[in-house]
Amino acid sequence: MTTANKAIGIFDSGMGGLTVMRALTKHLPQENFLYLGDTARLPYGTKSADTVRRYAIQCGEALIARDVKMVVIACNTASVALAAVQQALAPVPVIGVIEPGAEAAIMAAGDGPIAVIATEGTVKGGAYRTAIRAQGANMPILQQPCPLFVPMAEEGLIDGPIAEAIARRYLEPVLASVPAPSCLLLGCTHYPALKDVIARVTGPGIKLVDSAETTANAVASLLGEMNLQTPPKGTGTRRFLATDAPDRFARVGEIFLGEPIDPGSVELVDLQ
Amino acid sequence: MTTANKAIGIFDSGMGGLTVMRALTKHLPQENFLYLGDTARLPYGTKSADTVRRYAIQCGEALIARDVKMVVIACNTASVALAAVQQALAPVPVIGVIEPGAEAAIMAAGDGPIAVIATEGTVKGGAYRTAIRAQGANMPILQQPCPLFVPMAEEGLIDGPIAEAIARRYLEPVLASVPAPSCLLLGCTHYPALKDVIARVTGPGIKLVDSAETTANAVASLLGEMNLQTPPKGTGTRRFLATDAPDRFARVGEIFLGEPIDPGSVELVDLQ
Repeated sequence: MTTANKAIGIFDSGMGGLTVMRALTKHLPQENFLYLGDTARLPYGTKSADTVRRYAIQCGEALIARDVKMVVIACNTASVALAAVQQALAPVPVIGVIEPGAEAAIMAAGDGPIAVIATEGTVKGGAYRTAIRAQGANMPILQQPCPLFVPMAEEGLIDGPIAEAIARRYLEPVLASVPAPSCLLLGCTHYPALKDVIARVTGPGIKLVDSAETTANAVASLLGEMNLQTPPKGTGTRRFLATDAPDRFARVGEIFLGEPIDPGSVELVDLQ
Repeated sequence: MTTANKAIGIFDSGMGGLTVMRALTKHLPQENFLYLGDTARLPYGTKSADTVRRYAIQCGEALIARDVKMVVIACNTASVALAAVQQALAPVPVIGVIEPGAEAAIMAAGDGPIAVIATEGTVKGGAYRTAIRAQGANMPILQQPCPLFVPMAEEGLIDGPIAEAIARRYLEPVLASVPAPSCLLLGCTHYPALKDVIARVTGPGIKLVDSAETTANAVASLLGEMNLQTPPKGTGTRRFLATDAPDRFARVGEIFLGEPIDPGSVELVDLQ
């Protein structure tokens, strides 16, 4: 098989990264995709940087062992380990969600403040702050962890009065800051599932940046630069690996992928 | 050291089992306790039975390696693996939370229906139903998973209008069943943190059974039967092990233990 015909590997701690796969399959339908959800060890968001780095390298190695041409870390928490994963998987190119998201937020914000919502781990690690500053941008940056958003999304509690009350609880302190943020960065791949209720709480004055979308654009650019695109003929294959509970992966994954997942297409794998 | 002076080992996927330790230290203050939270791999509630069994045996072995006289599985999900853990750790006695909880629920229910609230994994495995039937009780059994209760408790969102709205969402369908349940069993060690809001939703007609309390009673009885009690002189030691993020363990653990945890008393351990 030529390198261009190989699959693009994607991994996440669980199902949230399927929002990135959804954006990728929309932009690049002809590509083959292999998605790995490390469901036996999710969530990564409350784990230490050392543990997350170790798990991320194991996920990347499992995809390389299945002969992918590129690895996408579709998980904000694990993207903090991007440099270590790139080093471990070289020469296969690796893309995370942080840099594309930071770049898009800078564009959207103009000179106004950027608000980042993410898991506890991502907020504590300050990865978006670091990436925004690394691109030379000096606007104020607000950060807000939203720990309930992941289990809410996985339960399908993505709209209605309870979802809105919880979104208000997290977002109102951020929205009340002076000057108000011009842009809200969804810094967790689960959060696009809650985009409608988040947009209702923020109102129309604040731009939402979805790191799933921005990462898909970055992958498309890199494939082009490296001349690794699959020739455009029809729709590629979509395969799934999970480290635990493939049935639950298929059922809950549908919320994030936006289309049904055949439980038979999800293979159980052991990374340890 | 005589066996009686050794510590009682307790483990859970994370911090929730500290509600069991809280009940144990109240009933048996003179005992020494060693608590292990498998925070690197939490939660167990969404993982498969095979994975949970493997993790539970590793936790038990880590406690045995530190010379405990008894092991308490302070986790409803992992208690499903009780027989396998007992076999792996023999001759050290092992107690889970399921049987004591089931027994107390039967006593509380009379002939009325029992409602069990628990994680997705515990409900799906039907462990309480099996344990209640194994004791020859034939009342109707209702089961309701409450997936948001664990992250709510860990965030300290344990009272107020949002907590109550979520509790109503889970409990009202159960309370509306005919005949109404006479008893509600808190089938997850995190849930006692939400006891007040749960009691407000159920109203005074329904007895709440807290498996942390009932397990503490079972441990006290077994220590007596086996003549393993520490002589009553002063207060025993309390030590903690965590497989990840000991700082977070200490901070969040306080909600469940009901008293401060010195971060210096939490040792980081690797089970793999």
